[in-house]
Amino acid sequence: MRILGIDPGYHRTGFAVLEAGKKRKPELLASGVFTTSRDDRLAERLLSIRRELKELIERHRPDEMALEELFWSKNAKTAIGVAQARGVVMVTAAELGVVVAEYSPTALKLGLTGTGRADKGQVKYMVEHMLPLPEKKRLDDEFDAIALALLHAKEKGLML
Amino acid sequence: MRILGIDPGYHRTGFAVLEAGKKRKPELLASGVFTTSRDDRLAERLLSIRRELKELIERHRPDEMALEELFWSKNAKTAIGVAQARGVVMVTAAELGVVVAEYSPTALKLGLTGTGRADKGQVKYMVEHMLPLPEKKRLDDEFDAIALALLHAKEKGLML
Repeated sequence: MRILGIDPGYHRTGFAVLEAGKKRKPELLASGVFTTSRDDRLAERLLSIRRELKELIERHRPDEMALEELFWSKNAKTAIGVAQARGVVMVTAAELGVVVAEYSPTALKLGLTGTGRADKGQVKYMVEHMLPLPEKKRLDDEFDAIALALLHAKEKGLML
Repeated sequence: MRILGIDPGYHRTGFAVLEAGKKRKPELLASGVFTTSRDDRLAERLLSIRRELKELIERHRPDEMALEELFWSKNAKTAIGVAQARGVVMVTAAELGVVVAEYSPTALKLGLTGTGRADKGQVKYMVEHMLPLPEKKRLDDEFDAIALALLHAKEKGLML
């Protein structure tokens, strides 16, 4: 099964494409971040997210997408921005026939480390243990997308 | 100019299509509400909003869309839902070449009644004064979409 992990934001959106199956080790086919320009108006930024994501889906043809559930944050402006970007991501996936799965932050930590209270370092350690990652500097958005895709593979029983 | 007023929500989205020009009275071409099913998952509900809106835009070919700015509400779950729907609405408009204008709730009241502190009754009175509306029961979502379209016409100097 091909899984797309997405960590949406209206400035930066992290993505990860993972190939996973019952009889194979998971393989990261692509990951990265796409950004929108702060000079653009909100509608154009959302459109840029839609276009990048559509291209990514058409290139890699994922079966399912994993997203983090969105909870209220202290910064209302950020939360509204993320929620708008998240709406665009969900609708684009649904339209292209990609099934959307959502995980809470606690489920993510619990599923990957065995404890819902794990810190970022523990999550990182477990992800790197399960999936050999090419050495490079990664933004959190990209790493979170990888972790989500990996969790989804695990939840689906697709880990050797 | 043809103006589309939209009041997005993930359950109900109000819409209004207004024809306005410098030398004519504004005319309401269509208005109403489209709803999504509570039985559907979020991604499907967002997709249903996108489809209804796309159909509406393709049928009426509006030049511009008027939306209310979104502020933080006391109910985080509702705010996130509305923001996700709003993201879908904005991206669909932008993709179909419809320019998106945003107005704060205060700008809406001020623009239509002359005071930013007007209550719902005053806004309703002024809207009905400026635009003869067919007699029917209207949900707030539909009325708000009409008010937004009318405000945008007024701001653009398109009121006889």
